[in-house]
Amino acid sequence: MAKIADKYLQVDPWSVVEEGFDPERNRVSESIFALGNEYMGVRGYPEEGYSGDTLLGSYFNGLYEEMPVQGHYRGTIRSLRFMVNAVDWLYTRITVDGEQLDLAQSRFSGFRRVLDFRKGTVHRELVWHLNDGKELKVTFERLVSMKRSHVGGQRITLTPLNFSGTVQVRSGLDFATLHEDQGRRFWAVIRQERTLNGAAMLGKTANTGNRLLSAYTLQVEGGIVLGSEPVEQEHLAGTDLTLHVELGQTTIVDKVAVNAANVSAEESDSAVWDQGMALLGQSDGISYDELRLEQAAYWEEIWRTSDIRIEGDPENQQGIRFCIFQMYQTYHGDNPGFNIGAKGLTGEAYRGLAFWDTETYCLPFYLFNNPKAAKSLLEFRYRSLDHAMERAREVDCEGAFYPIATIDGTESCDLWQHSNLQLHVGTAVAHGLWHYDRIVGDKPFLYEKGIEMLIQISRFYATRGQWGQKSGQYGYFGVMGPDEFQLMVNNNCYINLMAKKLFEYTRSVVEEMKAAAPQELEAVTAKTGLREEELDNWAHLAANMKILYDEETGLYEEHDGFFDMPHIDIHSIPVTEFPLYSHWSYDRLYRYDMIKQPDVLMFMFLYNSEYSPEAKRANYEYYEPRCIHESSLSPSIHSILAAEIGRREEAYNFFEFATRLDLDNYNRNTREGLHTTSIAAAWMNIVYGFGGMRSDGDGLALAPSIPQAWDEYSFNMTYQGSVVEVKVDQRQVHVRVTEGDSVRIQVYGETTEITNAGIQLPVPAAAVTAAE
Amino acid sequence: MAKIADKYLQVDPWSVVEEGFDPERNRVSESIFALGNEYMGVRGYPEEGYSGDTLLGSYFNGLYEEMPVQGHYRGTIRSLRFMVNAVDWLYTRITVDGEQLDLAQSRFSGFRRVLDFRKGTVHRELVWHLNDGKELKVTFERLVSMKRSHVGGQRITLTPLNFSGTVQVRSGLDFATLHEDQGRRFWAVIRQERTLNGAAMLGKTANTGNRLLSAYTLQVEGGIVLGSEPVEQEHLAGTDLTLHVELGQTTIVDKVAVNAANVSAEESDSAVWDQGMALLGQSDGISYDELRLEQAAYWEEIWRTSDIRIEGDPENQQGIRFCIFQMYQTYHGDNPGFNIGAKGLTGEAYRGLAFWDTETYCLPFYLFNNPKAAKSLLEFRYRSLDHAMERAREVDCEGAFYPIATIDGTESCDLWQHSNLQLHVGTAVAHGLWHYDRIVGDKPFLYEKGIEMLIQISRFYATRGQWGQKSGQYGYFGVMGPDEFQLMVNNNCYINLMAKKLFEYTRSVVEEMKAAAPQELEAVTAKTGLREEELDNWAHLAANMKILYDEETGLYEEHDGFFDMPHIDIHSIPVTEFPLYSHWSYDRLYRYDMIKQPDVLMFMFLYNSEYSPEAKRANYEYYEPRCIHESSLSPSIHSILAAEIGRREEAYNFFEFATRLDLDNYNRNTREGLHTTSIAAAWMNIVYGFGGMRSDGDGLALAPSIPQAWDEYSFNMTYQGSVVEVKVDQRQVHVRVTEGDSVRIQVYGETTEITNAGIQLPVPAAAVTAAE
Repeated sequence: MAKIADKYLQVDPWSVVEEGFDPERNRVSESIFALGNEYMGVRGYPEEGYSGDTLLGSYFNGLYEEMPVQGHYRGTIRSLRFMVNAVDWLYTRITVDGEQLDLAQSRFSGFRRVLDFRKGTVHRELVWHLNDGKELKVTFERLVSMKRSHVGGQRITLTPLNFSGTVQVRSGLDFATLHEDQGRRFWAVIRQERTLNGAAMLGKTANTGNRLLSAYTLQVEGGIVLGSEPVEQEHLAGTDLTLHVELGQTTIVDKVAVNAANVSAEESDSAVWDQGMALLGQSDGISYDELRLEQAAYWEEIWRTSDIRIEGDPENQQGIRFCIFQMYQTYHGDNPGFNIGAKGLTGEAYRGLAFWDTETYCLPFYLFNNPKAAKSLLEFRYRSLDHAMERAREVDCEGAFYPIATIDGTESCDLWQHSNLQLHVGTAVAHGLWHYDRIVGDKPFLYEKGIEMLIQISRFYATRGQWGQKSGQYGYFGVMGPDEFQLMVNNNCYINLMAKKLFEYTRSVVEEMKAAAPQELEAVTAKTGLREEELDNWAHLAANMKILYDEETGLYEEHDGFFDMPHIDIHSIPVTEFPLYSHWSYDRLYRYDMIKQPDVLMFMFLYNSEYSPEAKRANYEYYEPRCIHESSLSPSIHSILAAEIGRREEAYNFFEFATRLDLDNYNRNTREGLHTTSIAAAWMNIVYGFGGMRSDGDGLALAPSIPQAWDEYSFNMTYQGSVVEVKVDQRQVHVRVTEGDSVRIQVYGETTEITNAGIQLPVPAAAVTAAE
Repeated sequence: MAKIADKYLQVDPWSVVEEGFDPERNRVSESIFALGNEYMGVRGYPEEGYSGDTLLGSYFNGLYEEMPVQGHYRGTIRSLRFMVNAVDWLYTRITVDGEQLDLAQSRFSGFRRVLDFRKGTVHRELVWHLNDGKELKVTFERLVSMKRSHVGGQRITLTPLNFSGTVQVRSGLDFATLHEDQGRRFWAVIRQERTLNGAAMLGKTANTGNRLLSAYTLQVEGGIVLGSEPVEQEHLAGTDLTLHVELGQTTIVDKVAVNAANVSAEESDSAVWDQGMALLGQSDGISYDELRLEQAAYWEEIWRTSDIRIEGDPENQQGIRFCIFQMYQTYHGDNPGFNIGAKGLTGEAYRGLAFWDTETYCLPFYLFNNPKAAKSLLEFRYRSLDHAMERAREVDCEGAFYPIATIDGTESCDLWQHSNLQLHVGTAVAHGLWHYDRIVGDKPFLYEKGIEMLIQISRFYATRGQWGQKSGQYGYFGVMGPDEFQLMVNNNCYINLMAKKLFEYTRSVVEEMKAAAPQELEAVTAKTGLREEELDNWAHLAANMKILYDEETGLYEEHDGFFDMPHIDIHSIPVTEFPLYSHWSYDRLYRYDMIKQPDVLMFMFLYNSEYSPEAKRANYEYYEPRCIHESSLSPSIHSILAAEIGRREEAYNFFEFATRLDLDNYNRNTREGLHTTSIAAAWMNIVYGFGGMRSDGDGLALAPSIPQAWDEYSFNMTYQGSVVEVKVDQRQVHVRVTEGDSVRIQVYGETTEITNAGIQLPVPAAAVTAAE
């Protein structure tokens, strides 16, 4: 992997600290210091106005704009939806003696920015040196409330260091935000009203008519308010405060903002306004201090059950907590209408769209930390089943074709080669249902909604596939698998295998329901029109699925003809040519035995228990040297398999990349936003990788190892309603239940009842490294 | 083939006649009644203004606009160029008593429109019944001068049938033409001046700054000019004539227009103006009658040496003459900066772009009718060699990568799957050079320009290809062959075979030059930096080229894995699903053993003499039933091979389609323009098909057969400077030289000296049908 760490931020176990301001890195920092609460997110932009390079991004989950797609054919999409940049509710301007604070223009010192994982806040401070010699210490703190999804808070403090006098603060809401990718502002303000100590505005998007009510109230403490004037402009509602500040004393300006998004096309503007104002009422009069306390309490609870501790490796300690922090910020399942965009709520890149990453990379984190969120993610797919069924008809198939990229369930990938050839979201959803069933065992969900999805997904795969004329076997022609460096191939091994698993699982759930839930089975049969011969057909397709396997070498062939693809030694590619997407002709990417991310190895991870160590070793040794990891999703899977086959150093190297991907800006594109779904894999990397956890076999299994660099590490898992702590040092493993009843877990192959006292076992280092 | 003839127009051996006006078919007729002279073309639109459905198209070869391409990667294009709709130099308005003639609004009778192949004119007549009871006979005649490429003429006659009185005629030039595909008018008029009896304007395109000077003069005869007023508007320059017309007497208004296009960016507007005015001077004072005489003389000469006569089949007689007429209208080689767009100069579809059709389908017609034009077409490729070399670098290759679609030599296909994966224009150019060399033997061209192209094309193919890891053979990965229903495949048999031929031919020309033209070889070696090891490498690549051939069945496999592609019985596809591009999901088109047009059969046609009758039969019988002929280029090739292997009925059925493709609107899209390059294949269909002509072996060969439906047919070929006539009836073949020296031709396998007296041989019907 041609990846180089960009060491810039301070290492600390519970925070990210930036000392001094580097305008060149401002966009990267804006991504890293982004805050979110699943409902909304803001990048860490300087809210006081910044004339330098900035991406002022404020996003709301599920709020979208639309644009037409040039040049379409039947079955390719005509327009796409994207998460639209929305109101800047942190909008602030600070002026002293006619001079306005602007970090691109002003002189300042003592700049420090801190993201605190336990407080859930971003704090920024600096001393502003005015042209007339005045020195004003300014701090900004912000939070996006995890308890109150519509609420955000901001605290500004002003402390004159060498004068007493007047400071002008303009604070409010701004709907004139630029959606950079489209070079356009999408919002019109259709109503604006003053409220007690603030104002409210209703914004509406140009093409989709999505609406957003935004309101704020201000509270000043410690200074003297000399004047307070309303500001009403086309896109801006605010308050001009004239404050008297006293030498050495701190004046506080607190802002509480409430935002309510509405994507429904049916409701009238006045109904949306009224709903928003009612929401406003729910947080009426809450102070910034109260929001702060709630926020810290929320995070305390999270860390109690979801923390991962690493002793002896401060960088990765910080990295993994940053990842866990981001997972919760991005999604925690309060709203089943939401999903997880590839960049979460931290930037415009990937247009806020959700991919197969959700079920494949993010779901395990939630399954073992927040089962409610896991269910909500699956619920999202259920709610968008109609869209998937419509999409299947668009491509001349039956059942449900889940979109490769979506914000609301409709397909929003404008590259036909991806949206029409990548079939693997459907099987990812099916795998997610299977996984959720195994770990959480939520049978009501499975028997009502899960099975309906499984039936419709199976129908799609039973109509999209075809019979090879020469082989006489079933499979998928004209597809792109997870490895996006093989653009249009036949019988991709991953797709074929996952389809086989899908058919088998759908049938097994139907079988299970015959005995356990006949009424529900009757209901779903009636609803879907399921016929017995379909079930027979799926069995037939599964039994005749073409799986490219070479008995002699034990290798699975990624697709028809892969082994004949021209070879390239990926280490011969100059580092300056990465990322290849930018440096190689588009068609050239697809003509080698070079792969972008795990494909065969992916199913060996997902159905790990079905493959022998020898099979994993053989395929890892064949495919890893051909993988350039151009997807950020790639290294963790390799790390987990490397750990399993005893390549411990390799496992650790891949792990480092995953854990600090954004903090060290490995991919040189953190400026665009965080790699949210791929940092989900960092969690898997520890728990599945070093923890050796396996959740695909019979019951849960653990087989911990520990990198030599670490003194000790521990992680928690929520399993069957209990919290299990796994603590590993260089000598022994301690597994115990810290909350709830005892649970049965396989540890190093031995199924054991884990109680509060837990069990202690030596780390069989040899077992891990012997295979080397 | 699910193709149905739309019988509408009158059948006549020397013209196309439309009796009565059908507004529903107006656009189809506008295409069929289009005129052109290689330099410019006009659709057969009603020039007097028509408020119904019309595509008012006026085009100039090589004159283009540009538009950006959405969403590009490295190696995919960023903008594309297209032939832009230009000045309406036929612009006319006729008003009587305030009522304006408009075939969508006016009452009229006796409508008749005639395209005359011998006069080279379109004539239209009707009687206009005015609301006030007046009846005015109006005729319009137009021509685009074949002798004077910049000149067009129009004659309008007015004959009052039941009154004497005043008629208003506005006549002039209009630059406000709409480019329909883009929904935009691209022209600004930057200069406008009055001339004697007319005016001149200089138009300029919005993005590319291409310029067009257009001027007209008017001449009235037979009536009394009561008034003549200049009209000067932003885009319009004209003359308002007030004419007194007398009962039963004919008043004639003649217009001569001169147009001069300029695509150079260097020259100043005033220089362009001056050049245009100078051109104008060359045709100064010429009358419409003189243009008519010149035009008829030109066509008489063409028919003398290029006519094909069919006795006993009036429909195909008309059809083939229409095709020959169109070939000359579209291109006759006056300008080596021009090429042949897929729709010629008859519509916006395919954007006026030239494809591999030029060398593969059109070149043979010119080789045997107009060798100068054949040379000009190859010269076009030489002039755009720099563009092709730049394009090769864009896709990370060396040498020259000729564009799949172009107007000026730059790539203008915005679908990467075509522009990056279809490699076969380069080999088409090489094949064209080879073919031109065999038939015309123009060594100076070959040794200077041809060899330079061959070297650069070979370089491209030597860097774009790769070695199969398993096969150890060379070939092309990630390509689309001529059959566009297999989107991205490896080792397409056509591409591999044509590359092998390319390498071998390039080497053979170098070998030839070592003895015959050492100085020229030295020059080209210096210019291109050709190295001996490159030549060795090309030999090595050619020798190791992977050609998929099954010894047992004698079948060539279209590409790796084609024989395993899922089978579809193409006859099971409902006729309502054609064209499949419009009715099937885009990705679905590419997942069957269904082909769009000949691919394996294509190289069996091009290198016909290298394959045994058995090989042709086996491959025809395998591929033809899998071919849906969705390309209009397809049927002729099948017809030719069907004739060769004795499937005479099939050959005739395919032939009918090719010959009357547009006259009978088989593809239901003639409204967009004529299938110019595919009607070139209609000529091949007779000469190579029924005439059994072969030009790829040693010397020229003939093996005529005759469809049972015909009494007799004859065609002419220009060969080695002589004109050879081949006349075939149901009993015998007569081959003779009608102009020039005797030539040696193989007839039915026997090489014979053909003299003026010629030879007469019986048609060996059995030899053709015996193989059935």
